[in-house]
Amino acid sequence: MSALSKVGKLRASLARLRLDAFIVGSADAHQSEYVCDRDTRRAYLSDFTGSAGTALVLADKALLWTDGRYFLQASQELSDDWTLMRQGDTGVLELQPWLCKHLASGSRVGVDPYLMSTNQALALQTALNDKGMTLVPVEANPVDAQWADQPGFPCTAAIAMPLERHGKPHGEKISEVQSFLQENNADALCLSLLDEIAWLFNIRGSDVECNPVMMAYAVVTSDAAHLFCDERKISEEVRQHLLSSTTEPTAAVVHVHSYESAAAFIADLKAQGKRVGVDPAQINWSIYRAAGGKEAPQLLCPVTMAKALKNDVELDGVRQAHIRDGVALTAFLHWLEKAVQAAPNSLSEYDVAVKLEEFRHAMPGHQYPSFDTIAGYGSNGAVIHYKPAQETALKLSTDSLFLLDSGGQYLDGTTDVTRTMHFGPEPTTRMIDCYTMVLKGHIALATVVFPEGTVGSRIDAVARMSLWQAGLDYNHGTGHGVGTFLNVHEGPQGIGFRKRENEAGFRIGMTTSNEPGYYEAGAFGIRIENVCITVDANTPNNFGDKRYCTFETVTMTPISTKLINRSMLTPSEIQWLNEYHANVRQKLLPGIRQYYPETEAWLIAETEAI
Amino acid sequence: MSALSKVGKLRASLARLRLDAFIVGSADAHQSEYVCDRDTRRAYLSDFTGSAGTALVLADKALLWTDGRYFLQASQELSDDWTLMRQGDTGVLELQPWLCKHLASGSRVGVDPYLMSTNQALALQTALNDKGMTLVPVEANPVDAQWADQPGFPCTAAIAMPLERHGKPHGEKISEVQSFLQENNADALCLSLLDEIAWLFNIRGSDVECNPVMMAYAVVTSDAAHLFCDERKISEEVRQHLLSSTTEPTAAVVHVHSYESAAAFIADLKAQGKRVGVDPAQINWSIYRAAGGKEAPQLLCPVTMAKALKNDVELDGVRQAHIRDGVALTAFLHWLEKAVQAAPNSLSEYDVAVKLEEFRHAMPGHQYPSFDTIAGYGSNGAVIHYKPAQETALKLSTDSLFLLDSGGQYLDGTTDVTRTMHFGPEPTTRMIDCYTMVLKGHIALATVVFPEGTVGSRIDAVARMSLWQAGLDYNHGTGHGVGTFLNVHEGPQGIGFRKRENEAGFRIGMTTSNEPGYYEAGAFGIRIENVCITVDANTPNNFGDKRYCTFETVTMTPISTKLINRSMLTPSEIQWLNEYHANVRQKLLPGIRQYYPETEAWLIAETEAI
Repeated sequence: MSALSKVGKLRASLARLRLDAFIVGSADAHQSEYVCDRDTRRAYLSDFTGSAGTALVLADKALLWTDGRYFLQASQELSDDWTLMRQGDTGVLELQPWLCKHLASGSRVGVDPYLMSTNQALALQTALNDKGMTLVPVEANPVDAQWADQPGFPCTAAIAMPLERHGKPHGEKISEVQSFLQENNADALCLSLLDEIAWLFNIRGSDVECNPVMMAYAVVTSDAAHLFCDERKISEEVRQHLLSSTTEPTAAVVHVHSYESAAAFIADLKAQGKRVGVDPAQINWSIYRAAGGKEAPQLLCPVTMAKALKNDVELDGVRQAHIRDGVALTAFLHWLEKAVQAAPNSLSEYDVAVKLEEFRHAMPGHQYPSFDTIAGYGSNGAVIHYKPAQETALKLSTDSLFLLDSGGQYLDGTTDVTRTMHFGPEPTTRMIDCYTMVLKGHIALATVVFPEGTVGSRIDAVARMSLWQAGLDYNHGTGHGVGTFLNVHEGPQGIGFRKRENEAGFRIGMTTSNEPGYYEAGAFGIRIENVCITVDANTPNNFGDKRYCTFETVTMTPISTKLINRSMLTPSEIQWLNEYHANVRQKLLPGIRQYYPETEAWLIAETEAI
Repeated sequence: MSALSKVGKLRASLARLRLDAFIVGSADAHQSEYVCDRDTRRAYLSDFTGSAGTALVLADKALLWTDGRYFLQASQELSDDWTLMRQGDTGVLELQPWLCKHLASGSRVGVDPYLMSTNQALALQTALNDKGMTLVPVEANPVDAQWADQPGFPCTAAIAMPLERHGKPHGEKISEVQSFLQENNADALCLSLLDEIAWLFNIRGSDVECNPVMMAYAVVTSDAAHLFCDERKISEEVRQHLLSSTTEPTAAVVHVHSYESAAAFIADLKAQGKRVGVDPAQINWSIYRAAGGKEAPQLLCPVTMAKALKNDVELDGVRQAHIRDGVALTAFLHWLEKAVQAAPNSLSEYDVAVKLEEFRHAMPGHQYPSFDTIAGYGSNGAVIHYKPAQETALKLSTDSLFLLDSGGQYLDGTTDVTRTMHFGPEPTTRMIDCYTMVLKGHIALATVVFPEGTVGSRIDAVARMSLWQAGLDYNHGTGHGVGTFLNVHEGPQGIGFRKRENEAGFRIGMTTSNEPGYYEAGAFGIRIENVCITVDANTPNNFGDKRYCTFETVTMTPISTKLINRSMLTPSEIQWLNEYHANVRQKLLPGIRQYYPETEAWLIAETEAI
């Protein structure tokens, strides 16, 4: 089936629905970063398989917006019937202004309301209305209707998490949501983010690659909780878990319904006169409409913050998982250095990603990667979201830098770590200077102290100042929250220069990555990334009656000292690095001796004080 | 006339206008920080004379909102008929939520549309509409109608600025606005900020205390410019200046109209079918409505940025004015130290402010202060917006710190400088440690390098990090733009943690203050403030094809080294301080020798390297 005929079929549907345009994006109904195969509608329709892109089909045009990462791939994959809209290029309008400019007043633009967040939909609706156009929610997705071999939803069994992994029974969590409802004069709260639902019920799934979640909605009411998912995923054990609780019986009542019945259930609550709360930054437009639209209490979902504030049990798991992950990664880096030095230009970036998984998988509790490994040698290291493909991967050698960004899902924690290495005898002065500046930024952020509640955008520059001094910078954020055996990217905190929706300040117990970098196009990439926990800095003063916070680094893997220009570091930076390496050595030695004894000498050498 | 009868009269007007409430704020029609006596309606009505506060009069209540600086003063000045609304206190609603909560659906809330910015008015209107209420613009201000002895507008003569002071004929500036109009498909632009109008026409006034501006509106059309002001202010010389130009004749046509005719002129343009652009963050609600309201092109006023980007002539003036200001302030600080040491507890904070003016006024080009001098000894130094009054001012002595924040208006520049001193033999360790941390923050910001276009909120933390390490902080912004013989506070740049309306990133040629501080309630205040110019850092790289900027400090006055704990400074911080002092010495010596030769030895001593 050619792209043309797929577009042609969609055009027939548009004509039938009296639509002038239809938007097909990359999102699923849950704002997921990774989506399951069933939700790859834009790739099906356009043949463009990149992770980010939006298709717009009109009677006489088919356009696809994507960003610079994917210009080459999109131009190769799209047929001639498509026009590639290069986002960020001068004069290229984004989807919304394009629609406002090119469509006539009275036009009807369709979208599947499940596949767009409420805030996005309302902003688009307002812009279109201002031009006399209408945004039409089409619940019966015409792409699904024509997609004969569309995969079904995945159907993997859910698992129940034991108390010793999460430290807080779901009955207590649900009770807290119910208190929130009472405070906010609402009768129910709709949840749609998959990691929030997994966290709330202390269950995990494996419906989505790299993320231990299952496709679900949830509704918490004043006297019960409702989980909407494929009921075949709920084993008798999980059902017992859902019914169990250490708190009052009412909170523990979790009713399981089919995934498809969520919207109708919510509409029914609304019809009964209930005030059904939604967070328009999270919830899709369809659920929002079911809850009553503008009449629904607009709430800031309380589960986001509750999940981000790890308790002591979770933090202990985070620390333990990072030690095991450090054992695997350190042993792997040792293996890799030997392998590349023994036979340059034989191992590819793709081989590295595969082999690294073997090392991680030997560790207790390891499940699968927490995201697609980024393994970039030389110029590929400068491609920030590079994912090596088997056919095109570069071979690793001893001339340039190798950037490895990877992570694992463990039953007690999620990891995300980047190391940059050079396997040859002579890294260039440029590589060393740039690496040292990135390291200075990393250390500055690792040691910064700030008042609790400070938003990450206020401390983002801390990690960039050493690069800025030389006129260097990096085009990505500096940190993101990290789940505990959940999504590797989570909010509401983050460290970056862009304004985030629902962003919240850092509080004690939150996690973050610390990942400054530098990318020299066509040459090499550098990133040094550790995961940190926000902890009390125990300052001698507490101005403003606030706690002051700092970061505890939990990632445990040597930072390549071979690439450091020691003369560029201050005494306190050298002290931080030496203390970090002493800590890495102490934490990893037992595991290295147990699992990879051949790496002990290398670990000792790589963690020597400079 | 008692406050009751004034409120009673207003209530009678409200009944006649069928209004349930009327808002009387502190603003004039031009978003001015300082307002002229005619615009002190809130003080007239409530007897509360603080600079910030909003009165709300209802049939059975009169409320006044103000912030923590003024709780004491307001409670003393307000009669029993008023309820003080303590902004920031727990449970105290702001004006808008208070109206939404306490007034019934159908209520009509009045406001003088000249005295509220469009964005404020529209936000309030939306909130009220959502509750079924109406915001009613009342052009004939009922407070003015009842205020028998309301002062008239000031009528001071305008002056024309010569080319050697500003470097850019107003014809060129107007032409650039006309190009902007063309690019934005508009026929006219309304201007209301007094400093922007003064800058655009290269004229100055003295209608408003501390600010060399005159009460005016302006409208630039595609073929002319219109200035609306009291025509008696325009001498024949200024009229000739307005008609002169080095560019094409059309741009130079400046028509002068009466101040009161602005809104009617704008409404007339709109009636002729012209597209009359407004910046809703700047323009008052009345002018916005005259321009067509929602139909008017909503533009980001281009004069704001043009004025902020100083040209070389202006920057030279800024540097020269700061040297002369430094001569006066340094000589004054020397005089003050001697005076306090000779007779502790005799000079008051108020005396200091008066005497300082004498020193400044001896300098060529000096006009008047650029803001009310803040002179706080001991615990008064911890009151951030402290303004000494003759009756209550503390006497200066040798036990505590003295904070002096002051500035001058010179024909070639505007200054703003804060120094903190101790006149006794033994400042405490606490004072020294805190002072040194503030200095470290000041130096960190003075030396930071950042990509051009970086917004100030991203670098605000740079000035706080040293304080944060100890659990200390300060509750004010770190920097504001400074005009050139214009307002001491100007946008669109700024360095702070709060989001500013129309905020723009730093660009080469912009000015900023650098003023971290620390305030220990009941004990002392510390602030070290210099004015800086944003300059090219000439970095060896220019990642992202951007220029990288840093700050050139132009304030020239010694920073008290007696209060520094040298062991807390890094070698590069010591180097910065010593280079700064060497520069101060070199720049000030000629003027000190000319005007205050008795201070030469003190200047040398105070600028010795540490």
